[in-house]
Amino acid sequence: MQIEAPYLLFLGDTTHALDAKTASGILDWRPDLCSGQCRLAADAVDLGLPDFTPSEAAAAGMRTMVIGVAPFGGAIAPQWIEAILAAIRAGLDIASGMHSRLVDVPVIAAAAHEAGVRLLDVRHGTGGFDIASGRKRMGCRLLTVGVDCAVGKKYAALAIHRELVRRGIAADFRATGQTGIFIAGGGVAIDATICDFTAGAAESLSPDNAPDHWDVIEGQGSLFHPAYAGVSLALLHGSQPDALVVCHDPRRTHIDGYPDYPLPTLAACIAANEQAARLTNPAARVVAIALNTQGMSEAERHAALAMAYGETGLVAFDPIATGAAAVVDALLMDFSACAVVADPDRVANG
Amino acid sequence: MQIEAPYLLFLGDTTHALDAKTASGILDWRPDLCSGQCRLAADAVDLGLPDFTPSEAAAAGMRTMVIGVAPFGGAIAPQWIEAILAAIRAGLDIASGMHSRLVDVPVIAAAAHEAGVRLLDVRHGTGGFDIASGRKRMGCRLLTVGVDCAVGKKYAALAIHRELVRRGIAADFRATGQTGIFIAGGGVAIDATICDFTAGAAESLSPDNAPDHWDVIEGQGSLFHPAYAGVSLALLHGSQPDALVVCHDPRRTHIDGYPDYPLPTLAACIAANEQAARLTNPAARVVAIALNTQGMSEAERHAALAMAYGETGLVAFDPIATGAAAVVDALLMDFSACAVVADPDRVANG
Repeated sequence: MQIEAPYLLFLGDTTHALDAKTASGILDWRPDLCSGQCRLAADAVDLGLPDFTPSEAAAAGMRTMVIGVAPFGGAIAPQWIEAILAAIRAGLDIASGMHSRLVDVPVIAAAAHEAGVRLLDVRHGTGGFDIASGRKRMGCRLLTVGVDCAVGKKYAALAIHRELVRRGIAADFRATGQTGIFIAGGGVAIDATICDFTAGAAESLSPDNAPDHWDVIEGQGSLFHPAYAGVSLALLHGSQPDALVVCHDPRRTHIDGYPDYPLPTLAACIAANEQAARLTNPAARVVAIALNTQGMSEAERHAALAMAYGETGLVAFDPIATGAAAVVDALLMDFSACAVVADPDRVANG
Repeated sequence: MQIEAPYLLFLGDTTHALDAKTASGILDWRPDLCSGQCRLAADAVDLGLPDFTPSEAAAAGMRTMVIGVAPFGGAIAPQWIEAILAAIRAGLDIASGMHSRLVDVPVIAAAAHEAGVRLLDVRHGTGGFDIASGRKRMGCRLLTVGVDCAVGKKYAALAIHRELVRRGIAADFRATGQTGIFIAGGGVAIDATICDFTAGAAESLSPDNAPDHWDVIEGQGSLFHPAYAGVSLALLHGSQPDALVVCHDPRRTHIDGYPDYPLPTLAACIAANEQAARLTNPAARVVAIALNTQGMSEAERHAALAMAYGETGLVAFDPIATGAAAVVDALLMDFSACAVVADPDRVANG
């Protein structure tokens, strides 16, 4: 699934910033892809992009209208349909990360067929993956894993990818969720795959590559999640990561939405992920801890990072607040194939 | 979905006995349902049933042709289509447990529509599962797990279920694969679920029940399988088993089809399954080892069972050769709620 840029970010009549986190995530990481926003109400969330109607956006050269809002229930609101139809008639592809599928709305499906544009329901599997082969692939891979869902696995991967690229190292961000797919312009919605093929889908996401190339893969779920651990395990096995980064929110006490399930310790999370990962890559190891410290004071953040370092002996960082320089330093010291290419002096002195 | 008997077991041109394990499994456990076999080549697997063409089978009163072969990848072979069409035109329903759906083959779908017969894709029969809740359910549960695929998990579950029923204990066999579904007449093809919902599907398969009722759940895959471990983990978490039975084939040296993946030891398999199971049921424990000793001499079988017992300290049995009496004895001694109902004297003396 390849999504064509530039994007028009559709915000509808959404007034809650959290409901627009898909759109704001795309804009945070790929402002170069986002040329405008489309809002249906004066008090709708404003991301600060120029406002366009769908036909103005098409005339300005935009290629895809991205439904960047995820309202409660994940359904397509009736009051959005007119704008979606206008975008289709103007020749824009429509991409959506909602649970409800665009192709299941007959008037939308009919209009898209007539106009010859694509409806890209990125949350829904397109299928056609092979059963995982278990064959070790060339190239270096990093996967972000977590103590729970929604602890910053996507942002950690994006920050590490950005830092690798900044240093001139060949690297790709590999998206496994809807926001990540919009950011990368492609990927696999891993949790929408048929479970027999989930590890195979993960294998296909990071194919053979040059020995010094890094795939930085967005993690999903947690091995400690009573509903999603199977997804996490299949992604872990298919990704065959050399390096793992454990993501954590130090304020969380239990699995979100599951009060009877306490959060694992960092040590337990590291041990479980390393043990499971070594089935398909015996060299896999956790190299860093990513903390979501959003909203903490500077002192609280330092204390949280120091505690994570003290507990694990690993680099601890916040992808947003501190950036990923320290983890990339650690990564390149640990994995010599890439390190030699990247910065020989750093390795020699490390 | 009700599958009408008698069955004509379709074996195609399959020459590998393992590829016909769906057909042979149905025949082993429900010979009363199986009236004939349909083979397309002289060297195809022979189950010892009378051979019929589809039209002969229909004339003899059979109601459903069951695609009893499951080649790697699960696709419908082009050379089978003529026989499937002949069966449809003779008025037989067609039931399939393959990944590829009968209804997705236009010529088959059209013929079935015209003849007014049903296409039963049991691997795709259900949908709309909830996300797993992680909530502990009432009743007792046993899940068979394994060192690999195809080591006897279904047979172990069926033998244990049969022995519980023989003793008058309330119990259900819960099928998770196509053969099991043909045998039980219901169930969930767990490996065909969308992976976000796999654990939820497993929860729905063994709902709340009486405190002394046993659900005996057919396991799938292995935590040590590079392609299917995610399926196994989701099934393990959603099943919330109290008791686990580890299934093994003592002659196997590596994961079938994956020569680079050695088989785990029994101790490693027990430890990994107990550790993972305790996320959703802290009381979970392995109670027995089931060995597939088919084709061994009596002396070899005894040696294999003694070795498994020596390695683990647990009851070791072969579901076919020795039956499940010893494991049910152990089960009922370990789990008092059921044991009291089953045989108070045995518990008092145990």
